Amino acid sequence: MSASSPILLTPGPLTTAPATREAMLRDWGSWDGEFNRMTGRVCAALLAVVHGEGEYVCVPMQGSGTFAVEAALGTLVPRDACVLVPHNGAYCARLVRILERMGIAHVTLPLAEDEPALASAIEAAFLRDPRITHVAQVHLETSAGLLNPLDEIARVCARHGKRLIVDAMSSFGAVPIDLRGSGIDALVSASGKCLEGVPGMGFVIVRRALLEQCAGRAPSLALDLHDQWVYMEKTTQWRFTPPTHVVAALSCALDAFVAQGGQPARAARYARNRATLIESMTALGFVPFLPAAVQSDIIVTFHAPHDPAWRFAELYAAVREAGYILYPGKLTEVDTFRVGCIGAIDEEAMRGAVAAIGLAIERLGIRVA
Amino acid sequence: MSASSPILLTPGPLTTAPATREAMLRDWGSWDGEFNRMTGRVCAALLAVVHGEGEYVCVPMQGSGTFAVEAALGTLVPRDACVLVPHNGAYCARLVRILERMGIAHVTLPLAEDEPALASAIEAAFLRDPRITHVAQVHLETSAGLLNPLDEIARVCARHGKRLIVDAMSSFGAVPIDLRGSGIDALVSASGKCLEGVPGMGFVIVRRALLEQCAGRAPSLALDLHDQWVYMEKTTQWRFTPPTHVVAALSCALDAFVAQGGQPARAARYARNRATLIESMTALGFVPFLPAAVQSDIIVTFHAPHDPAWRFAELYAAVREAGYILYPGKLTEVDTFRVGCIGAIDEEAMRGAVAAIGLAIERLGIRVA
Repeated sequence: MSASSPILLTPGPLTTAPATREAMLRDWGSWDGEFNRMTGRVCAALLAVVHGEGEYVCVPMQGSGTFAVEAALGTLVPRDACVLVPHNGAYCARLVRILERMGIAHVTLPLAEDEPALASAIEAAFLRDPRITHVAQVHLETSAGLLNPLDEIARVCARHGKRLIVDAMSSFGAVPIDLRGSGIDALVSASGKCLEGVPGMGFVIVRRALLEQCAGRAPSLALDLHDQWVYMEKTTQWRFTPPTHVVAALSCALDAFVAQGGQPARAARYARNRATLIESMTALGFVPFLPAAVQSDIIVTFHAPHDPAWRFAELYAAVREAGYILYPGKLTEVDTFRVGCIGAIDEEAMRGAVAAIGLAIERLGIRVA
Repeated sequence: MSASSPILLTPGPLTTAPATREAMLRDWGSWDGEFNRMTGRVCAALLAVVHGEGEYVCVPMQGSGTFAVEAALGTLVPRDACVLVPHNGAYCARLVRILERMGIAHVTLPLAEDEPALASAIEAAFLRDPRITHVAQVHLETSAGLLNPLDEIARVCARHGKRLIVDAMSSFGAVPIDLRGSGIDALVSASGKCLEGVPGMGFVIVRRALLEQCAGRAPSLALDLHDQWVYMEKTTQWRFTPPTHVVAALSCALDAFVAQGGQPARAARYARNRATLIESMTALGFVPFLPAAVQSDIIVTFHAPHDPAWRFAELYAAVREAGYILYPGKLTEVDTFRVGCIGAIDEEAMRGAVAAIGLAIERLGIRVA
């Protein structure tokens, strides 16, 4: 792996399979039946990942995952609603910023960055504040790599009759999610995360009966999920120019996803990557930030060494030289850095990356433990 | 050219050069300096196309061109403004829909679909309605292929002190635009049009002094042009996951654009394509919808034949079989269809397409003239 085409240990964009990239070697007409059938197949495959066939629909959206999150909140949440945001990281903060911009009332449930959103705490918030009508929940907080207990959260939302919108950006496809009989109203994710496509489109999987009620509500034309859905149902086409090559890459990546064994196989590979990473980083003296019970298999946050010689930028440059791209920390209180475990990579890549980290800290003269 | 990888005669997505698509054969980290330097080079190259260096900045935006148009209007237009929209096609109607969603006052200057927006008519609108503060102008109405006289419009806006935001989606790079000393405040376009990149990102070229005044105004977080700009200035990174492969393809396409002679060369090639197309279609008996004086070199609208045997879908399928993708009409009053002249194609492709159209109408038994 050369320095100019490194392996990405980042949580999207990530390293994709050669076939996925090669799917972008042709052009597609956005009015053409062949392309629109591909969009239809992609949406059907996305629904199948979470068992959403029948009751749910999949609406793709141009842009990054955040565009799809904003489309979901802007289209699905009435303006007189009050949204609870359990808050344990930067992606929760982003949900709050979006709600603020749209002038939607919200309350946060403040949590530490290593503290999962427990169903009991969410239930207590419902009892404390009866204004709450919706919950906007980040499934997997990529800031630390923390997995929130979605099944329990969905059950407590259903029991209390609260709508639940889930930012499943970096969990979709890897962490099991089953929409059948669940309390989940909408799930949002994107092309360039655990499905191992390239970045450029998001999608929202939403209860059809809910979306049907949302005509004309979105404050944005571009991010109007209902309008996007109705137009696509009627014409099979996207409303506005689709990212054709990104869709083709996702279609190819979804074929590989299914051929490799679907979500269970993806989860198993990422779990092996995470185990290899933590084991070999621990051997170098690095300490994971999260307790094992809430550590996801998607990305691992490590404490920065206490050595005054430590500069993340220097480690980054040295490891990049060896062909691996690390990711900076995103925590507010603690100095950390992150290593992703997702993408078309296996344990060999993880071992190679840790070997490069080991050589780099030696060369940079950093004492880790 | 096989039926499964046809030549696109559509105004974006369009046929790209093989090198542009091959630029997507590697993955890029969105935090990595190499990628962010590429974004910087792309923005600088886009500014140079319209001589915007110094006074203007280029802000890229994820999503289709419409996302960038909405970002420009939502960020740059104060909520107490009144926007004039000269209206001669579907893309003008889209500007109106965006303004309606955002609750921004606007007036339209209704025009026929073959009638350019004359500076004198715009000036008369200013005099009739002193509430007007802004003009949102589609440069090249792709609905018919009509070119509006932007230089004259910009001069009249400057003379009357009106802000001018230009949707230059399908003109940028092909039709000459010179921002130096112009009355243009912002220009919007996208990756997958005359620059011959793949679709997936838009961009706004905007007067720096204007953008600086727009903090916190956008009603959307994702489509906040000011926030996108400030973050990128500070970090060199995109705020949210960039469409990395689309950016890489655009970077390659811009290199080719410059190497081929820039805007004048692009304009000359498209003019040859348009001339070849109209000449050979006219020989078959087809009649262009627009008078030559307002016909752009980007896309040509033809009247549908009066023969009752005419079905556009049948012509489309037959021509597609031969390896060419046509485009349906988008006019409200007249039955038409369109053939694009843009993309990495030359007169040979145009002649091939018209030959396929000729064979198809013969086979379908359609009398054209």
